[in-house]
Amino acid sequence: MPSYGWLLALSLAALTGNNAGAIAYERTERNCSLVPPYLPSTAVNTTLQLQELRERMRPLNISAYIIPGTDAHLSEYIAPRDARLAFMTGFTGSAGTAVVTQTKAALWTDSRYWVQAKRQMDCNWELEKDVSVSSVAEWLITEVPPGGQIGFDPFLFSLKTQEDYDVNLESSNRSLKSIPANLVDQVWKDRPPIPPDTLTQRSWQMKVEHIRNEMRDNPYQPTALLLSALDETAWLFNLRGNDIPYNPFFYSYTLLTMDKIWLFLHTDRVSEELKVYLNASCEGPLCVQLKGYDTVLDNLKTYVAQPGVKVWIGTEYTNYALYELITPQDKLMTSSYSPVLTTKAVKDETEQRILRDAHVRDAVAVIQLLMWLEKAVPEGKETELTASEYVNKCRSKQKDSRGPSFETISASGPNAALAHYSPTNETSRRLTVEEMYLIDSGGQYLDGTTDITRTVHWGTPTAMQKEAFTRVLMGNIEISRTIFPSGTRGVNMEMLGRRALWEVGLNYGHGTGHGVGNYFGVHEWPVGFQGNNIPFRAGMFTSIEPGYYKENDFGIRIEDIAVIVPIQTKYGHNFLTFDTVSLVPYDRKLIDTSLLSSEQLQWLNKYYETIRKLVGPELDKQGLHEEKDWMLRNTDPFMTSGSSASVSFLFLNWTFV
Amino acid sequence: MPSYGWLLALSLAALTGNNAGAIAYERTERNCSLVPPYLPSTAVNTTLQLQELRERMRPLNISAYIIPGTDAHLSEYIAPRDARLAFMTGFTGSAGTAVVTQTKAALWTDSRYWVQAKRQMDCNWELEKDVSVSSVAEWLITEVPPGGQIGFDPFLFSLKTQEDYDVNLESSNRSLKSIPANLVDQVWKDRPPIPPDTLTQRSWQMKVEHIRNEMRDNPYQPTALLLSALDETAWLFNLRGNDIPYNPFFYSYTLLTMDKIWLFLHTDRVSEELKVYLNASCEGPLCVQLKGYDTVLDNLKTYVAQPGVKVWIGTEYTNYALYELITPQDKLMTSSYSPVLTTKAVKDETEQRILRDAHVRDAVAVIQLLMWLEKAVPEGKETELTASEYVNKCRSKQKDSRGPSFETISASGPNAALAHYSPTNETSRRLTVEEMYLIDSGGQYLDGTTDITRTVHWGTPTAMQKEAFTRVLMGNIEISRTIFPSGTRGVNMEMLGRRALWEVGLNYGHGTGHGVGNYFGVHEWPVGFQGNNIPFRAGMFTSIEPGYYKENDFGIRIEDIAVIVPIQTKYGHNFLTFDTVSLVPYDRKLIDTSLLSSEQLQWLNKYYETIRKLVGPELDKQGLHEEKDWMLRNTDPFMTSGSSASVSFLFLNWTFV
Repeated sequence: MPSYGWLLALSLAALTGNNAGAIAYERTERNCSLVPPYLPSTAVNTTLQLQELRERMRPLNISAYIIPGTDAHLSEYIAPRDARLAFMTGFTGSAGTAVVTQTKAALWTDSRYWVQAKRQMDCNWELEKDVSVSSVAEWLITEVPPGGQIGFDPFLFSLKTQEDYDVNLESSNRSLKSIPANLVDQVWKDRPPIPPDTLTQRSWQMKVEHIRNEMRDNPYQPTALLLSALDETAWLFNLRGNDIPYNPFFYSYTLLTMDKIWLFLHTDRVSEELKVYLNASCEGPLCVQLKGYDTVLDNLKTYVAQPGVKVWIGTEYTNYALYELITPQDKLMTSSYSPVLTTKAVKDETEQRILRDAHVRDAVAVIQLLMWLEKAVPEGKETELTASEYVNKCRSKQKDSRGPSFETISASGPNAALAHYSPTNETSRRLTVEEMYLIDSGGQYLDGTTDITRTVHWGTPTAMQKEAFTRVLMGNIEISRTIFPSGTRGVNMEMLGRRALWEVGLNYGHGTGHGVGNYFGVHEWPVGFQGNNIPFRAGMFTSIEPGYYKENDFGIRIEDIAVIVPIQTKYGHNFLTFDTVSLVPYDRKLIDTSLLSSEQLQWLNKYYETIRKLVGPELDKQGLHEEKDWMLRNTDPFMTSGSSASVSFLFLNWTFV
Repeated sequence: MPSYGWLLALSLAALTGNNAGAIAYERTERNCSLVPPYLPSTAVNTTLQLQELRERMRPLNISAYIIPGTDAHLSEYIAPRDARLAFMTGFTGSAGTAVVTQTKAALWTDSRYWVQAKRQMDCNWELEKDVSVSSVAEWLITEVPPGGQIGFDPFLFSLKTQEDYDVNLESSNRSLKSIPANLVDQVWKDRPPIPPDTLTQRSWQMKVEHIRNEMRDNPYQPTALLLSALDETAWLFNLRGNDIPYNPFFYSYTLLTMDKIWLFLHTDRVSEELKVYLNASCEGPLCVQLKGYDTVLDNLKTYVAQPGVKVWIGTEYTNYALYELITPQDKLMTSSYSPVLTTKAVKDETEQRILRDAHVRDAVAVIQLLMWLEKAVPEGKETELTASEYVNKCRSKQKDSRGPSFETISASGPNAALAHYSPTNETSRRLTVEEMYLIDSGGQYLDGTTDITRTVHWGTPTAMQKEAFTRVLMGNIEISRTIFPSGTRGVNMEMLGRRALWEVGLNYGHGTGHGVGNYFGVHEWPVGFQGNNIPFRAGMFTSIEPGYYKENDFGIRIEDIAVIVPIQTKYGHNFLTFDTVSLVPYDRKLIDTSLLSSEQLQWLNKYYETIRKLVGPELDKQGLHEEKDWMLRNTDPFMTSGSSASVSFLFLNWTFV
C-alpha cells in the first residue's frame, strides 16, 4: 500500500519539479531545499530556544554545545524533565545527540528515526545519519575553528562517551569543556518538576552482602562501589518508584563500602516506614545512611580524599561528572558493568518463576486484543490508537498490573516500516483488511516486565509479505532452538535471526534482542545480542526480535521473550538453549510452511503445545471461553512435512547412499 | 585408539598412585609434583639460561622480565634468530609469552599447545593456561612486590599490548620499564645470524600512489605512513625475501610521505638491479631512499621533529619502540591496521585468478598424497613423517612451487587431538588402518599461498568418529553456503562452523579461519573470523576450518580456502557468499549423509562438480591417469535425499498444509 502519508497536492509538484505521472503528494516530511522550506504540521519551531541557547554559549567561550538524549543516570527511558533533546530539536525519538554552534545545529539519530526526525524538526536542524561518536567529531572538526572549545554537561556523558570524544578530537586542536550547569535547563522555562512519590518495597540485606562479597573477591581490592544507574540502586534495595515513565525507578545514587551504605535520593520523599525498612537511624554495615540527592558529589569527593580508598564504577552507566572526581588514577577501578548489573542479569529460581507467570497473564491480554481486532477491524472503525488503548485496557485487568512497560508501537501498513513508530492523533491510521498491522507492547507487573510483538494481516497478504513474515519467523525460531555452550555471546549468534532473510537479500536495521527485568526496565542491559552485551548464562532473560521493514509499505517484527536454560546433549555438558516465555500464537495466514525446515516446524508445534498447556488453564480460570477457542484454533499443529516440492523430489529420488 | 604416547611402565604406577586396572604408562609429559620431578626425554634443561638472564636483570632493578614469542615486526612466523621464547623455555609452539622473576618462571600458551609445553619444558617453568594479558598481569601483581618494575623489550610489544599491560597494571603500583637492548639476546651465545639473500621482484609505483591517495583522503591528514609489519613493505614494493621460514619476507621498515619513500633494510643485501628497480638514485616522489635497517629509529626521530608532521601507524603491527618516538600526541595518527594491510586484504581480479590457479595445482599434490596413502598405509611402513615428506615432494613438482607455506601438521590417532602438532623423529606415529589421520599442509607458489586440511580413515571408523566428522563437515558447509550482506564480520558468522557440533555437545578450541596471501603469509590478517578482523568484502580470501578433537583419541579438521564473491539474491543487492577454491574431496567413508540437510548435500555435490571441472583437466595435462580415476571415484555425486528416517517420515505424513 504505497499511499501512506502522501496527500494529493498538485501545487507542490510544480515546485519540486516532480511531474512524473502528472500527480504528486504533499509530503509529511520537511523539505529544506525548497524556498521557502516546506515544513509539515508536525514540525516544531525551535528558533527561539536555539537563539537563547546561543546567547548562553557566548560568555562561556564555547564554539559548540553537545546535547545528549539521556539523563544523569544514562537511562534509556527518561523523565519528561530530562527530555532536553526534544525541547531543543522537536525530535522525540528515544535515541539521538544534538550539537549547536552559533550558526548551525545538527541532530544525529539512527535509521529507526530518520523519518520521524524529518517530520518533527524544522530547518534550523541538519539531520546526520551516522550516529558514531567519530561522525559527530568529524562534524565538530569542520564547524569549530582550531583552538575552539566544545561544551558538554558532564552529568550526561558516560565516561566511555567522554573518552570516545577525546580520542576522536585528540590531535585536532579542538577540546571538550565540561560545564556542569546544563545550558538547556537555563533556557527551558517550563521544565517539568520531579513528581512527588512514595517508593514500593521488598527486602535487601542479602543483596548488599552478595555485592560486598564480589568486592572482597575482586583482585583489585576496591573499598567502595558507586552505583549510578537507576535500576542498580532500585534493585539493590528492592525499591521501586515512578520518576521515569514506564519504568519503576526513582532518582538515586548509592555508595557502598564494606561497612557503610550511603543512599542519595530526594529525602523529602522518604516516609518513616521507608526509614525503618532501610535501617536509616543506625550506623552499622547494614544501616543505610540517607543523603540528599544533590550531595553525591561532595560526599564522593570527601570519600575519595581519604588515603587507601579505591572506588569501583561501571563505565557504561557512570556519568563523567562522578568519574572525574575519582583521582588520582589509583583510587579508581573500572569494569564495563558494575557487579550489581551483572548479578541482576541472572534471575534466581523465584524470579524466573514469577517472570514466567507474568507472561502467562500477559498472553491473555494480547490474545484478547488479537481476537477483538479480528472481529472489529472489518467493521472499519478501529485505528492504531484505539488498538493501543485496547491492549492497555486488557493488560490493566490482569493481576498485579502496573501499566504498560513502554509506549505501545501500534502501526498499520507503511507506519510499521518505521521500526519505532507510536501513533499520535495526527498520524493514527485506520486499521483495514488491506494492510498488515504490527503491535509491539508490554506490561509492567509486580512479578515481571513483558515485551511482545506480533504482526498480523486480516485480509489477503501478498506473496512477498508472506515470504518476508515466514523468513522473520524462521529467524526467531533459529535463534530460539539453538544449542550453545554456556558463555557464548549473543552477538555471535544473532545472525541466525537474519540468515533466512539474507538468503533472499533482505535484512533489518535494528538489534536482535535485549534483556528484560523483573518489574524493571523493558530494556535491561547488559543482557542481549549486541557487541557490548555480556555472555549468556542460564537464568538470563532476553527478547528475540528479528524483523523486516519495507519502506512506505509494511513492517514485520516477531518478538518473544526467552529465558536461557540448561539442556542435556548427547556428548557434552554445560550447554544451553532458549525457552520462550511469551505465549501468543503467530498469524497462521502469514506462515508459508513450505519454507520451514522440519526442525523449524517441530519447534513451532512444540511451542504451540506449550501455549495450550500454560495459557489454556489461565483463560479457563478467567472465564474467557471465546478467547480459549481462538487460542486453540490458532495453535493447531502444523503438518511436519517439508515443502511439496522438496518432498516429491525426495520421494522420487529416494535411494540409500 | 587411546594408546598414544603412553609406554608401559609399571614403575611409575606406584609413584603416582595410579593403580586403576593394574597397569600404567610412562608419561610423555613432565610431572613436576613428583620428587624428583619426572621429565620426558623431550624436555629441555633451561637452568643455565635462566640463571644468566636473572644476572642481567639484577643491575637493571627489574623484578620481572617479559619475553613475548614474536619479533620486532610482530610476525606470527619468526626467523630462528627471533625464537627467544623457545631458547629460554624449551617450548617451540608458535604462540606464547614467558615471564621470569628472580625465583619463578612462567609460560602462557593456549590450549593447542598445553600438551606440547608439558613435553618440552622442564620444571623451572610453570604452565599458565589463560593467555589474556589480564592473566599475565594478575600473575605479575602476585609475584612482583609493590613499587616493583617489570622489564620488556619495546620492539617486541605492539602498542596495543603495551597499552593492555598498562591498563591491567594501572592501579597496582607495579610499572612497566622499557629496555630496548633485549636481555635474552645478551644471554644467547649461539643466536643465529640473518641469512644472506637476494630479493625477488615485480612492480610497485601504482601501489604507492594508491596508498598516498588513502592518506590524502583521510580526514586526519597524516603526512607520513610508517610500515612495520614485514608483509606491508614486501607487498608495497612487490618484493619477496626469505628471512623468515615458510614466509617470503625480509627484514624491513618503510616510511612513506607524499613526496618521499624511505625503505629501511639490510643494505648490504641490495643488488644493483634492485637499486634500479626501486629508482634508488633519484630524489622524486617515486624514488626510493634506501636506508640501513638499524637507522629507522634515528630517521623517524628526525622526521617527527619537524613541525606540522603527523605519522599514521597501524597499532596491531607497529612495535612500541617506534610508537614511543612519535610525540607529542598530535603528531600521531592510529588505526588498528595500516591502509596497506586493509588494501592488501582485497585481492584484485588478477590476484584472485592466479590464487585460484595455484589451488588447482595444489589440489593435484594433495590428491597424489591421499591416493598414495590409501595404498601404502595398509602395507604398514608409512609414518606421519614419511607422509609429510611425500606431500612436500608432490608440491615441489608443481609449477612455480616455492616450498611449503608452513610446517606440515601430519598427525595420526591421538596426535591429531593436538590441533597444532607436527611430527618429529621421537613422536612420529606409524600410520595404520586403525587410526584416523589428519594432514594440514600448504604450499608457497609464485602465484599464491595454499593451506588445506583433510582428515581420513583407511579402516572402519567408529560411529562417533563418523558423526563428529560429519558435523565438522556440516560446519564447513554451513559457513561456505551462507549468503550475507557485504561488510558482515566473520566473528558474527563463525558459529555456523560450530552449530552442528554444539547440537550434540561438541565444540573446538581454535579459531574458524584466517586470511591467506598471494605468495605471502599463510595467516594473512586482518581477514578472518576473529573479533579483531575487518568486515568481509568481495575479493578477500579466508580459510574455513572447523574441527573436533577428542583428547588421547583422534582429531578432525576440515579446512578449505574460499574467496568471497558477490551473489545475486531474489530481493536485495550487495550480498556476498563464499566460493571454495581448495579442490580436494572429503573422505566419503566418514560422511553420514543422513545427518546432512538437502541444502548441505546439494552444496557438496556442486563442490564435487567443481573439483571435476577444474582439477580433472589439470590431472589430464600432467598425465596423472590413476589420480584422475581416484578423483572421479571420490567426487561421485551423493543422492540428494535427507536421511532414510526423515524421508520415510515425510512420505508417510505427507499432506498439504
